[in-house]
Amino acid sequence: MEKVKPRTLSGFMELSPDKQAKMERFQEILRNTYSLYGFTALDTPIIEASEVLLAKAGGETENQIYRFTKGDTDLALRFDLTVPLAKYVAANYGNLAFPFRRYQIGKVYRGERAQRGRFREFYQADIDIIGDGSLGILNEAEIPAVIYRTFSSLGLSRFKIRVNNRKVLNGFFAILGLDDKASEIMHIIDKLDKIGFDKCRSLLTDGGISEKDVSEIMSFISISGTVSEKLSALSKYSGKNDVFDTGYSELASIARYLPEFGVPKENFELDLTIARGLDYYTGTVYETTLTDHPEIGSVCSGGRYDDLACYYTDKKLPGVGISIGLTRLFYVLDEQGLLSDEIITAPCDALIIPMTENLSEAVKTATLFRSFGIRCQLYGEEKKFKAKMSYADKIGAPFTVFIGEEEIALGQVKIKDMLTGEQSLLSAQDAATLINENLKSRRGASLIKEG
Amino acid sequence: MEKVKPRTLSGFMELSPDKQAKMERFQEILRNTYSLYGFTALDTPIIEASEVLLAKAGGETENQIYRFTKGDTDLALRFDLTVPLAKYVAANYGNLAFPFRRYQIGKVYRGERAQRGRFREFYQADIDIIGDGSLGILNEAEIPAVIYRTFSSLGLSRFKIRVNNRKVLNGFFAILGLDDKASEIMHIIDKLDKIGFDKCRSLLTDGGISEKDVSEIMSFISISGTVSEKLSALSKYSGKNDVFDTGYSELASIARYLPEFGVPKENFELDLTIARGLDYYTGTVYETTLTDHPEIGSVCSGGRYDDLACYYTDKKLPGVGISIGLTRLFYVLDEQGLLSDEIITAPCDALIIPMTENLSEAVKTATLFRSFGIRCQLYGEEKKFKAKMSYADKIGAPFTVFIGEEEIALGQVKIKDMLTGEQSLLSAQDAATLINENLKSRRGASLIKEG
Repeated sequence: MEKVKPRTLSGFMELSPDKQAKMERFQEILRNTYSLYGFTALDTPIIEASEVLLAKAGGETENQIYRFTKGDTDLALRFDLTVPLAKYVAANYGNLAFPFRRYQIGKVYRGERAQRGRFREFYQADIDIIGDGSLGILNEAEIPAVIYRTFSSLGLSRFKIRVNNRKVLNGFFAILGLDDKASEIMHIIDKLDKIGFDKCRSLLTDGGISEKDVSEIMSFISISGTVSEKLSALSKYSGKNDVFDTGYSELASIARYLPEFGVPKENFELDLTIARGLDYYTGTVYETTLTDHPEIGSVCSGGRYDDLACYYTDKKLPGVGISIGLTRLFYVLDEQGLLSDEIITAPCDALIIPMTENLSEAVKTATLFRSFGIRCQLYGEEKKFKAKMSYADKIGAPFTVFIGEEEIALGQVKIKDMLTGEQSLLSAQDAATLINENLKSRRGASLIKEG
Repeated sequence: MEKVKPRTLSGFMELSPDKQAKMERFQEILRNTYSLYGFTALDTPIIEASEVLLAKAGGETENQIYRFTKGDTDLALRFDLTVPLAKYVAANYGNLAFPFRRYQIGKVYRGERAQRGRFREFYQADIDIIGDGSLGILNEAEIPAVIYRTFSSLGLSRFKIRVNNRKVLNGFFAILGLDDKASEIMHIIDKLDKIGFDKCRSLLTDGGISEKDVSEIMSFISISGTVSEKLSALSKYSGKNDVFDTGYSELASIARYLPEFGVPKENFELDLTIARGLDYYTGTVYETTLTDHPEIGSVCSGGRYDDLACYYTDKKLPGVGISIGLTRLFYVLDEQGLLSDEIITAPCDALIIPMTENLSEAVKTATLFRSFGIRCQLYGEEKKFKAKMSYADKIGAPFTVFIGEEEIALGQVKIKDMLTGEQSLLSAQDAATLINENLKSRRGASLIKEG
């Protein structure tokens, strides 16, 4: 028979079992962290009616969308998790309690040009808090706490949550009389990291901004020091513009509650150069960078917006949210060798190898182990001893348990620690205890290794 | 602005937050159970090249497939998790250790005619064990143990795992000299549950089978009694046909190891009427029915097959697997009112309501609670007390915690059990302990309620 080549499309991540085990852990940590902050899980369809999904889209995004018809229906695959959230909240407005906190970890689709490290199918992990008409600043202040716990739980300590406020920037531009150029200026500032100060300065000048104003802008975004030093420097602009004053007070609120939210000073920074490209954001904006790996860019970004679902409803639904591009982040961490070797990625904690024809004792032992929470695999193939051991090595089982005539006669099992090579003859129950004791630290090991 | 109606396509499940919480629990139980048996997680793309995905398809399935082009590429959405597994194993043959045990819980797509309870996007939860060239019977014997633990962990005790063996049926038909009609007969027998004995008999007769053979068949599939009584009745056919004898010995092996796998007698049955529609299966076949809800049909089915990936590779890859149609099962359980009311579906365990302008104590309390593993939400909106309480009621938080001037002065918090209405004044730490103690049983509650 003619064979079809079993290939996976380029731009689609398909991991080996050991890497997938790490990805599963990643997602579990995200679910647990988000849940601790009162975010509820949501799962929306991957396919939506095109008219619903594209109500807002346009430009570049629209070209990337997977769109097709089935029967008479014009369908599209979701390209983010925000539009489905807007649809969901608008459609279920009457049944939801606001503020509505949801998380969603799901695949999204963008038909980008395929290149290394770019994915067409990728996971996003989003949290959002949606208010009905209004949303208190405490929600914005809590977001850095979620980011901090997320990356701490993943095993990191050297990362920085960088926060700014669009109202502070907009208000400042208004003070300079540059209201009408605010969006343009922010797009330039947002590129600062990539293009540097000089290029930024010349782009602003090219944009028709006076030398004097350019200098004002550059010195504003260069304000340095600790969080409180920066706030104090900013306070000099207070009282000149309402938008600025509101933004300033929001930034100050966020800074004030940080310690009580358990976010250490060294993981937080006011960064006046952060603007986020999207005009969508209207208040606090967030980015997160790994201190030792600035080249990765922001690993968790988002911000405050004023109107989530204006394409679907007249209700004003302000919100704040952040997103992790999970697939890309996982890919980069793996590429850089930053994923732990310590966590258990084998399909089982213990492989049980029966050495007799009657498999009863092996089965009983497996059943006992499982009652102790040990992930356990029975090897039931009739193979030579060498093949059995090679299988144990290949799957990387931390423990192998042999049950032969001798062990059965003694009412014991022979257990081998595959890391040290150490073997012991123990009762099945003692073997289970040994495994659980031994694996305790590896089960709790960090997913990401540092420095 | 013209608004787009925020609708979700029919045939696509999108749950309310409380129901989604139950769905999340369902998936968590499946992941944990599968992991206990040494199955490793796999996550394959939802989109595949059509030529890969449809290598095997044909007939009805092909019409249901979501197929489209993007650029020059002919693409399709997966319609099950078996074809992607076959592709994966064939493509990664050299890197995998066999037997290869994987689970996958993922969405699949079939453009079926929309009707109540039928889904076009739905989750399947599959486990498979793939051998390289051969696969020991112990793997087939272990499958009922996985099924048993899955449904026990979901909270059920009244269910039956029904097992048969295609070789027993094929061998028996061969004994009657009906080899060439085996497939046809099995398709008829497979419908027995729906059409009854009389209709089954007449369909067989219509199929050109002699009265005598029809009677033989009907009396064979009517063999009754306990597992061992049935095996003993079957043994009378032994020695007449090799295929039958192999099947018989496989069935006997499975029955023998059941108690040691921890599967109670009352949850297992040899059922000679089970054939499973697909010709794909070649040995043991499994179905699972809920004793009090036969109308739901089989909730977990599968079987042994000889050749997983023949469309992609010359390697012979026999396997055994089972599948749960998760979305449909969840839908039916919910419709029948069988999902627990006891498990916590609120987005948080405790809602903290600050009663002062300074939110520091509330934030500190939330941070403390979270360090105790309590899912905690801070209510930061400036609303009237009544609106705050109505929010607490609406999200269904088990506990509400008030922090006002008085409590702050005392260094305590006021905690209210929303179920009993009881209020206490406690230190934040004691409040955390109270919450964890109180929620222990609800956190461990069964997802499915019985009887």
